[in-house]
Amino acid sequence: MEKLKIIKIGGGIIDDAPSLQQFLQLFAQIAGPKILVHGGGKGASEMLRALGIAPQMVNGRRITDAATLDIVTMFYAGKTNKSIVAGLQQNGVNALGLSGTDGNAVRAAKRPVRDIDYGFVGDLTPASVNAGLLAGLLGLGLTPVLCPITHDGHGQLLNTNADTIAATAAVALGRQFAVDLHYCFEKNGVLRDVNDDNSVIPEINEANYEELKQAGVIADGMIPKLDNAFEALRQGVDKVVVGHALKINGPLHTVLCLN
Amino acid sequence: MEKLKIIKIGGGIIDDAPSLQQFLQLFAQIAGPKILVHGGGKGASEMLRALGIAPQMVNGRRITDAATLDIVTMFYAGKTNKSIVAGLQQNGVNALGLSGTDGNAVRAAKRPVRDIDYGFVGDLTPASVNAGLLAGLLGLGLTPVLCPITHDGHGQLLNTNADTIAATAAVALGRQFAVDLHYCFEKNGVLRDVNDDNSVIPEINEANYEELKQAGVIADGMIPKLDNAFEALRQGVDKVVVGHALKINGPLHTVLCLN
Repeated sequence: MEKLKIIKIGGGIIDDAPSLQQFLQLFAQIAGPKILVHGGGKGASEMLRALGIAPQMVNGRRITDAATLDIVTMFYAGKTNKSIVAGLQQNGVNALGLSGTDGNAVRAAKRPVRDIDYGFVGDLTPASVNAGLLAGLLGLGLTPVLCPITHDGHGQLLNTNADTIAATAAVALGRQFAVDLHYCFEKNGVLRDVNDDNSVIPEINEANYEELKQAGVIADGMIPKLDNAFEALRQGVDKVVVGHALKINGPLHTVLCLN
Repeated sequence: MEKLKIIKIGGGIIDDAPSLQQFLQLFAQIAGPKILVHGGGKGASEMLRALGIAPQMVNGRRITDAATLDIVTMFYAGKTNKSIVAGLQQNGVNALGLSGTDGNAVRAAKRPVRDIDYGFVGDLTPASVNAGLLAGLLGLGLTPVLCPITHDGHGQLLNTNADTIAATAAVALGRQFAVDLHYCFEKNGVLRDVNDDNSVIPEINEANYEELKQAGVIADGMIPKLDNAFEALRQGVDKVVVGHALKINGPLHTVLCLN
């Protein structure tokens, strides 16, 4: 099977223009078919504040009302996505930016209201990602760049977690490609000691993942990220790598595998 | 040659949500390969005002400084483009939104500073539109939706006239397709009497165009639009139609032809 790299970058790298430029140069050097998935960043919150729209948070999670959806759509699908694509074109990558509504790339369902109404937030299913579209675009020599805005197919745009988009895309494309999924952030990998950036755990499998969680070495926000990653591996993704966005071609990172 | 329709809509229809919805339904009914090109609309100016960024105009034309470019990129490539694409998906059209940087769809040159510095405004050449990309996307069964943001290939986004993008795309694709170019606006066509919406001139050729200009029947903003249209016809576009966005499938419109 042909290899495919799906690389996810988060807000930390997006918010720092020199780091983003450096990352795009490194991304350009990756050979073969590839897809970039990007998260949000702080710009949308700053614009919401500038427009006098107070962020609504419940249990630390943002509620996406209609006004907020408008702004995050402008920011993620407009400014951030087009800046990244223009930067990749500058570096010789024929990138093409996509929200989930473009070519029906990612179709989500508005999160059902239970205890909390999260507003216009989209949840994915394994069938959400249009693998045929992405394979078609790759076949035209393009590098898709996905932003965290999806749609419901009935005219509604939805704010959606970029980690989940990356994992779901990796699984969907895993049927035609040998997919490496890279989660990039501002650490060198999954760390044994969060205060020591050199304490990277080089490999985590399902067995020692449980041990590391029980020992409290892996905690908080890393757990849902790694849970998603192991689920992607169980569903046919070849390899998941967690590492620093600016060391993407280097040796220092954490590789996740089933056993 | 296979037929292709390129349809351009302007700000008037974009600013009125019910009209836009109605237009998208009509657009969905058009058979065969098609491309939609959309202009700006008033939303960006409203947001600039809300953020305290004063619009800079010289001789009635907007100067696009860096702050303005950020906002128009968010609005045109983010909000407007994705709303249109989501509306088309809802109506069964597999639309895919593009700025000029996506897949290098439209590469422009920053307007040279002569008497006036227009800022980040892009001018097109006949080679600006990537006909191979658009034909490739059409070949995947997609309907490209182009917004008026382009790039220079060196990382810079540029604000660009949508009429010119539509005409340049029509000429570029005219080598592989029999292209009909439709300019849609809020009038029924080119009018003999601007106050009588039923005074549509059904056909204008190069000879009576000169007469109509000299008689003052065609004036002001219609002249550059029609000049562009005749230039497109001379460069191989099959037909140019000027008419109302909400009567796109109807009989009332102006057809432009060379003779």
